[in-house]
Amino acid sequence: MSDPFHQLDSTLTQVWQRLARGTKDRRAATRNPTLATVGNMGPQARTVVLRAVDPNAKTVEIHTDRRSLKVAELTKNPNAALHIWDAKANLQIRLRCTATLTHADAEKWAQIPENAQRAYGGSPAPGHEIPRPDAHDPAPNRDDFTTITLHITEIETLHLGSDLHRRARFAAPSWQGHWIAP
Amino acid sequence: MSDPFHQLDSTLTQVWQRLARGTKDRRAATRNPTLATVGNMGPQARTVVLRAVDPNAKTVEIHTDRRSLKVAELTKNPNAALHIWDAKANLQIRLRCTATLTHADAEKWAQIPENAQRAYGGSPAPGHEIPRPDAHDPAPNRDDFTTITLHITEIETLHLGSDLHRRARFAAPSWQGHWIAP
Repeated sequence: MSDPFHQLDSTLTQVWQRLARGTKDRRAATRNPTLATVGNMGPQARTVVLRAVDPNAKTVEIHTDRRSLKVAELTKNPNAALHIWDAKANLQIRLRCTATLTHADAEKWAQIPENAQRAYGGSPAPGHEIPRPDAHDPAPNRDDFTTITLHITEIETLHLGSDLHRRARFAAPSWQGHWIAP
Repeated sequence: MSDPFHQLDSTLTQVWQRLARGTKDRRAATRNPTLATVGNMGPQARTVVLRAVDPNAKTVEIHTDRRSLKVAELTKNPNAALHIWDAKANLQIRLRCTATLTHADAEKWAQIPENAQRAYGGSPAPGHEIPRPDAHDPAPNRDDFTTITLHITEIETLHLGSDLHRRARFAAPSWQGHWIAP
């Protein structure tokens, strides 16, 4: 079997397959990407959970609390980056994105298990100082449930092969790939 | 043995111990943090290798090619974030930093094994389009060797415990910790 990372088109196929796996397999490296945004005092980066992927629309979806800093940041500046380092595959995936936000989506909210709904809502709001770790009252609240849809405009890959480091870039709207110097 | 993440001071100690481990142990989660910067078109995030840690100076060090995009970005805007997700420890470490750059450091260059020096220099420069993955000529060049020193101004941790999610923030100059809502 030929190495998929030796060709541009199969490299891009790998990206979409691995992103799709991240929405289903808790152990996939694509399950927990790092979301980077631009904050008031510089860049911010945090782990998020990949909730959905649409290869046709070129979007990925994550969920958060409406009162979190990333919602404020993306409201002000919708440019975002999603980053994955898959150590087992020796593969880095970098997605350049623009975010749109949807608040309190009733249909999506209904699909979230009751226990997981506790991640949205609660008092005080995320990031607020509390006297003790348990001084936080989880109170699931659909109004605080925000869907972040990331519209991907560019994909960059770096595969550390045994022979070579292969770096490639794919950009909307053609998504034609190009090799770039590592 | 009590859980170190149940107390603020031992949580901070864990961060510094784990960062130090990342400079020595290739398998430590802290070996390959994600560096986020602010680019012309939004945030950028990529995997880097942790080269040195100084808990007294509150700095960490990474190495790169002078012609890389991150050098241009940090020259323009020195604000940076370093992000680590340690899946085994259920621990997220977020470092807010300011970067200073040093070019062509002779002493550090001399300590880099010859084979590893190939990561700095080479033609064409990183990110430039090439016709094939092997259309890149590695040519070690000390002039292209850049040290990025990240001066940490804030540390945020999130530990996903079996009972509670514990989130804490520590900031210069006192580094006194505070619990914050997860």
